[in-house]
Amino acid sequence: MNNLFADLPTDLPEELVEVLAENKHARIERIVSTGHASPDGFWCDQEEAEWVVVLKGEARLRFEDDDKPIHMKMGDSINIPAHRKHRVEWTTPDEPTVWLAVFCRD
Amino acid sequence: MNNLFADLPTDLPEELVEVLAENKHARIERIVSTGHASPDGFWCDQEEAEWVVVLKGEARLRFEDDDKPIHMKMGDSINIPAHRKHRVEWTTPDEPTVWLAVFCRD
Repeated sequence: MNNLFADLPTDLPEELVEVLAENKHARIERIVSTGHASPDGFWCDQEEAEWVVVLKGEARLRFEDDDKPIHMKMGDSINIPAHRKHRVEWTTPDEPTVWLAVFCRD
Repeated sequence: MNNLFADLPTDLPEELVEVLAENKHARIERIVSTGHASPDGFWCDQEEAEWVVVLKGEARLRFEDDDKPIHMKMGDSINIPAHRKHRVEWTTPDEPTVWLAVFCRD
């Protein structure tokens, strides 16, 4: 057994990504951000579909095809189809933001 | 966007299962229990591997091959391989228990 809120770092040089479960089709990750954002001008373009939820903290996500950012708080989840370009504009610096992400090939 | 803690019923005749995302390989479900348990003597024997986390509430899970039940609280996650027989022995009657489960074929 593993607790998603255990061992939360409060200050990280980079996002912390841990694989919780994986097989040939899918991968489940815990991602911890402490104020991180995607680099300026960078868009994440993924081969895999991603379903992601914020379990603690807050974040602002943006899609290249939508001018309006999405503010995500505890419990908010979203589906990101493969190749829908997106970036993390902001995560709160006030506490660790814990994401749970499920990546899956079509 | 969808919030995992929204619209939580407090009294349910049966567990509430909602599919949050699905493709041919994997399925993500929110399951809400309000004091539910598996029927006496029933063991769940699944074709799919399941990764499951308790996001709110508390539960006790038991495997047929292990006499000791596993007490799960907020954030506790576990991998259940396909065909490892298990049952939910107890969920707290004090509040809704919210599970997030990812089912995946090998």
